[in-house]
Amino acid sequence: MRLRKKPWVSEALLEYRDIVVTDGTANLGQWLRRYGGEELHVEIGTGRGKFINGMAEKNPHKLFVGIEASQDVLYDAARKARNNGLKNIQLIVFNASAIETLFAPGEVDQIYLNFSDPWHKRRHAKRRLTHEGFLAKYQQILKPGGQLWFKTDNEKLFEFSLNQFAAFGLRLSNITFDLHNSDFEGNIMTEYEARFSAKGQKIFRCEACFGR
Amino acid sequence: MRLRKKPWVSEALLEYRDIVVTDGTANLGQWLRRYGGEELHVEIGTGRGKFINGMAEKNPHKLFVGIEASQDVLYDAARKARNNGLKNIQLIVFNASAIETLFAPGEVDQIYLNFSDPWHKRRHAKRRLTHEGFLAKYQQILKPGGQLWFKTDNEKLFEFSLNQFAAFGLRLSNITFDLHNSDFEGNIMTEYEARFSAKGQKIFRCEACFGR
Repeated sequence: MRLRKKPWVSEALLEYRDIVVTDGTANLGQWLRRYGGEELHVEIGTGRGKFINGMAEKNPHKLFVGIEASQDVLYDAARKARNNGLKNIQLIVFNASAIETLFAPGEVDQIYLNFSDPWHKRRHAKRRLTHEGFLAKYQQILKPGGQLWFKTDNEKLFEFSLNQFAAFGLRLSNITFDLHNSDFEGNIMTEYEARFSAKGQKIFRCEACFGR
Repeated sequence: MRLRKKPWVSEALLEYRDIVVTDGTANLGQWLRRYGGEELHVEIGTGRGKFINGMAEKNPHKLFVGIEASQDVLYDAARKARNNGLKNIQLIVFNASAIETLFAPGEVDQIYLNFSDPWHKRRHAKRRLTHEGFLAKYQQILKPGGQLWFKTDNEKLFEFSLNQFAAFGLRLSNITFDLHNSDFEGNIMTEYEARFSAKGQKIFRCEACFGR
C-alpha cells in the first residue's frame, strides 16, 4: 500500500481528540474504566478502520482499541468512527512492539491481526506480528483464555503463523484456508480484504486461544 | 486410482507369507518381540508401498507395519519389499477402523498417513482417517508422546485435519503448505506424490504429537 505523507494530518487529528488517544500509555490498566464497555478488544494494525468500525458497530458494549503505526492511515479510521457516531472506538498511533506499555497484564479480552505485513524475508521474521516474540507480549496483556483472531491473504505468513501458534502451545480453532467460502459467520472485511477477495483470491483465517 | 480386481492375487500372496501377515490381530502386543526392531512404525493406507519401503530401507532398526484395505494394491508393496530384501516390513490387508485390534495400548511409536482418501462429502467426514474418531484410536495405540505424520495434496482434507488435530489437543509442528519447497529433509515420496508433484502441485504436511 502506498502511503503518501500528509503534513496536515497532525493538525487535523487535533479535532479527533475524543477518538484518537495521544498518550495511550496513560490508560494502562484503565481502558474500560475510562472509556466504558464490558470487554476490551484490540486490533493491531488498524489501517483505514473498516474492520474496527464494523466490529464496534456490531458490538456496542465492547470497547475497541485500534493501534496503527501510520498517523496518515489512522486519520481515515478516525473519520470513519466520527461519521458512524461510534463511542466505543479509541485509536492510537503506536508501534505494536511496545504494546505491553499500553495494556496491563490480563487487561485485554481479544486481539485481532488482519492482513499484517508478511515481512517476507527470513531475516525479518521477528518483525511479523505472529512471531513468538509478539505472542509472548500478547499472552501478557490477554486474560487467561483470551483469543487472537488472525486473517491474512498471505499463504506463507499463514503457514509461519500456524507453526508459531502451535509451538507457543496455543489452542487453534476455526482454521480455514478460504474464509469467504467457509462456515464462519459474521466476518467483517477490511479495506484490503474487500479489494483482494473481489479478485477471487482466498483469505486464510484462524483463532488461537491463550488458555492457561 | 482405478484398482482392477486381480483374482490370482490371493494365491500369489501365499508366496509372501514372510512379508504379508494373515492374522494381524494375533500379533497384538507382540510385534517387536516377534519381528524384531527397536521401534514400531505403522503406515495406514500403504498403497503400492513406495513410502514404507523407502522408510524401512532408511531405518533398518525400526519395524514398519503397513496396513492397506486393498489386497491387490498391497501385493505390489509386498513385491517391492521382497525385491529390496527388506526384513523390517510387515504388511496386512486390513481395515483401519479396527486398528485397535492390531496393536496394544501404547505399542506404536509412530503413525503415517499419506494421501488418505479425502472423502469429500461432508456426510462422510467420519471416514476420513484424520477424523477425531480415528484420532482416539491412534491415541490408544500410540506411546505417550507418539507422533502422527500426515501429508496430502488435498487442501480441504488438510484444513479439516488441522482443525481435528487442534480440537483433539494435539501439539502440531512442521506445518507446511508446500513440502517439496520446505525445510523438511529426508522426505520419502509415495507413488502418488511423485506423480502428482511432478505436475508442479503442492503437498501439505504436518506432524501431530499425542503428548500427555
